[in-house]
Amino acid sequence: MSKEIPYKIYLEENEMPEKWYNVRADMKNKPAPLLNPGTGQPLNAEELGAVFCDELVAQELDNDTQYIEIPQEIRDFYKMYRPSPLVRAYCLEEKLQTPAKIYYKFEGNNTSGSHKLNSAIAQAYYAKKQGLKGVTTETGAGQWGTALSMACAYLDLDCKVYMVKVSYEQKPFRREVMRTYGASVVPSPSETTEVGKKILAEHPGTTGSLGCAISEAVEVAGRDPGYRYVLGSVLNQVLLHQSVIGLETKAALEKYDIHPDIIIGCAGGGSNLGGLIGPFMGEKLRGENDYRIIAVEPASCPSFTRGTYAYDFCDTGMICPLAKMYTLGSSFIPSANHAGGLRFHGMSPVLSQLYHDGYMEAVSVEQTSVFEAATQFARTEGILPAPESAHAIRATIDEALKCKETGEEKTIVFGLTGTGYFDMVAYEKYNDGDMSDYIPSDEEIAASVAKLPKVNA
Amino acid sequence: MSKEIPYKIYLEENEMPEKWYNVRADMKNKPAPLLNPGTGQPLNAEELGAVFCDELVAQELDNDTQYIEIPQEIRDFYKMYRPSPLVRAYCLEEKLQTPAKIYYKFEGNNTSGSHKLNSAIAQAYYAKKQGLKGVTTETGAGQWGTALSMACAYLDLDCKVYMVKVSYEQKPFRREVMRTYGASVVPSPSETTEVGKKILAEHPGTTGSLGCAISEAVEVAGRDPGYRYVLGSVLNQVLLHQSVIGLETKAALEKYDIHPDIIIGCAGGGSNLGGLIGPFMGEKLRGENDYRIIAVEPASCPSFTRGTYAYDFCDTGMICPLAKMYTLGSSFIPSANHAGGLRFHGMSPVLSQLYHDGYMEAVSVEQTSVFEAATQFARTEGILPAPESAHAIRATIDEALKCKETGEEKTIVFGLTGTGYFDMVAYEKYNDGDMSDYIPSDEEIAASVAKLPKVNA
Repeated sequence: MSKEIPYKIYLEENEMPEKWYNVRADMKNKPAPLLNPGTGQPLNAEELGAVFCDELVAQELDNDTQYIEIPQEIRDFYKMYRPSPLVRAYCLEEKLQTPAKIYYKFEGNNTSGSHKLNSAIAQAYYAKKQGLKGVTTETGAGQWGTALSMACAYLDLDCKVYMVKVSYEQKPFRREVMRTYGASVVPSPSETTEVGKKILAEHPGTTGSLGCAISEAVEVAGRDPGYRYVLGSVLNQVLLHQSVIGLETKAALEKYDIHPDIIIGCAGGGSNLGGLIGPFMGEKLRGENDYRIIAVEPASCPSFTRGTYAYDFCDTGMICPLAKMYTLGSSFIPSANHAGGLRFHGMSPVLSQLYHDGYMEAVSVEQTSVFEAATQFARTEGILPAPESAHAIRATIDEALKCKETGEEKTIVFGLTGTGYFDMVAYEKYNDGDMSDYIPSDEEIAASVAKLPKVNA
Repeated sequence: MSKEIPYKIYLEENEMPEKWYNVRADMKNKPAPLLNPGTGQPLNAEELGAVFCDELVAQELDNDTQYIEIPQEIRDFYKMYRPSPLVRAYCLEEKLQTPAKIYYKFEGNNTSGSHKLNSAIAQAYYAKKQGLKGVTTETGAGQWGTALSMACAYLDLDCKVYMVKVSYEQKPFRREVMRTYGASVVPSPSETTEVGKKILAEHPGTTGSLGCAISEAVEVAGRDPGYRYVLGSVLNQVLLHQSVIGLETKAALEKYDIHPDIIIGCAGGGSNLGGLIGPFMGEKLRGENDYRIIAVEPASCPSFTRGTYAYDFCDTGMICPLAKMYTLGSSFIPSANHAGGLRFHGMSPVLSQLYHDGYMEAVSVEQTSVFEAATQFARTEGILPAPESAHAIRATIDEALKCKETGEEKTIVFGLTGTGYFDMVAYEKYNDGDMSDYIPSDEEIAASVAKLPKVNA
């Protein structure tokens, strides 16, 4: 069996992108600006500069520059683990007996186990360049914290990670990877911050939340001028950095003259999805090409499919800027879903605007069916996917099976964001038949949406 | 910073090896044959066929054929995760400020997390081709069991893994990966075999050993003609399959006209080391080229550096064939060393003969210094190495630092066999400063060597 298209398409190092692509430049309706929660006014560069590095503030606010140079130091770091392969899923196609052609961009072949490193190194680099001592962040599932720890170790930058306490305790291995990379990892809520102390006093015994961890990380960054806060998703700057995924994907497809019909990505805060689809969306926005673009989210946390497009807080502590996005309300507490990286109540403002304007679709899938797809994929393609990534696999298999019914030879590209080596507790539940699905009620969502900030009125 | 040689050298799929290299064909002194422990006579094909698949028996006994065709089905499977990159360790070189040029062949970018998959798929393929229902094996650290589970899932072959009880309990995630791939994983010793029952009766509460797990797996394979036993290291056939590592390494080096001076690999049973050095050793044996070849073993289990070259059992249960090898005695119980894959009392007969004949060197390194090297490597090269692999990193750093002293620009190639995602308990100990070293006393080694089988007399 000789294949015209190899199993794995690798770009040469000299074919790797030299610039990030900024999809905002091609959007007619720009994403709504971040607002100061106190004044309700758009945040300016100075205000944002108190939280983020200056260069990242500039990128956050830049809605016009189509391509932004990737500094040579970041490109060198990218070469440690990139280009990532675009894989032709020959084995999965055969298993499904589908006429569809399936490709996936695999971002899991690095120690952080996910695409998060693409933005982590950029954010750490700009912090270092600004002469800062270090950065603070929060982590839930742990992929972002691991990626940031790796980037900071490489640049010799201090890294403080507030890890949601329940993850800190249930994922000790993730914690140890971060410590191996020299990060200090603090279970959140902690006694190291005012907000942490307050929460501990009010809710003794709480196992924490992402929102609380964000609040602690922001507070710590704010009290030392040598530190800034960094975030692994949602923000415009993150989607910019992650565009390296889509640019490489596009270059690899063009190398073999492949035209995708459908592009699929899982969606939590939107970092992977926005990065993967960016350059394709650009063509769509400019009217040069058309693609079906599908965001896949968990049925337990369905911000696109059941949320509201409105200004909301990014954190449950309600101290961060307001972002206009599809949201379930910042007080929405997602039920136990093992795809920790998709348990976020909101969605990237860029993607929210694009979805609102009809440029993409969204579907939600249930956990058990996601693990079924994950297991099938692992057994045929040999890669054990992260639960987050497996949402995209589920939707891809569903589309491929539709092709089997209709006989259409569609070309599907999906983002395989990471590996599941640190998610075996979830796999164990599935293997033991103990996994359950949960879909929030309309009332539940309505209750948290009712608490959206007044600025929407 | 533009590099003439890329960070990662990938072969094209059509440059991948089509044949395995059999180093035995180039050895003047062939490795000693396996002996029947009852008769003390060399085992013939028929006797071996009761335990191993026919085709694998042929490979085991073939000391003459220099190149053996890799079946197309196996080559297709290899394409799922191969070619593996040959990485130039630019970042480590800079960190060490060494004039040495360092390369590593990285075998960890697959879900089994190691090179073990190279032989697992071959052994599973021949079992399937022979019409068998399944295979049995043992696993300690879990890499081999995982690899075999993946190969069996791909070929729809039953897979029974006897996992050393202490690992089964302490490495639940490894166990779950195997279960996700459909393997049945039994903690050993178990009530499912006669030998297991006997050991449990004699030693209630034992946490098992590799030797006991081997005995159980062999017994189970022996009582059903639809099953055969498979082994992930030591055997000649395994080194043959693993030659794909060395062949790819050599092809990648030749592509950029790089001539290595030193080749370094960690050594447990010898599967990785034998595979990596195979084609280079061939050139050395044929007098075409010279290389320093260094085996690195843990100071806690130093079969090359402190063992005896003699016939010994491969298992502590003493039911398996006798192999002539460097051994600490099959009753030697390695102390707690986290590199589970290197805790084997013996060494591949092929490598033992080559070492005996002076074609390679061996060094032993202590655990704490290994984790120090592992951490330094992780922080500079971005890959969290398996403790086994980190033995090779330790020796490589030591050689690179010697070059720094002498100013020699030596080219060093080492095998990075795998990743350490399932070894975080060991990393945690190191991070907490709780790791200790252990070196067996001369008396301890002498005591187990004194129990070598009588056939040596």
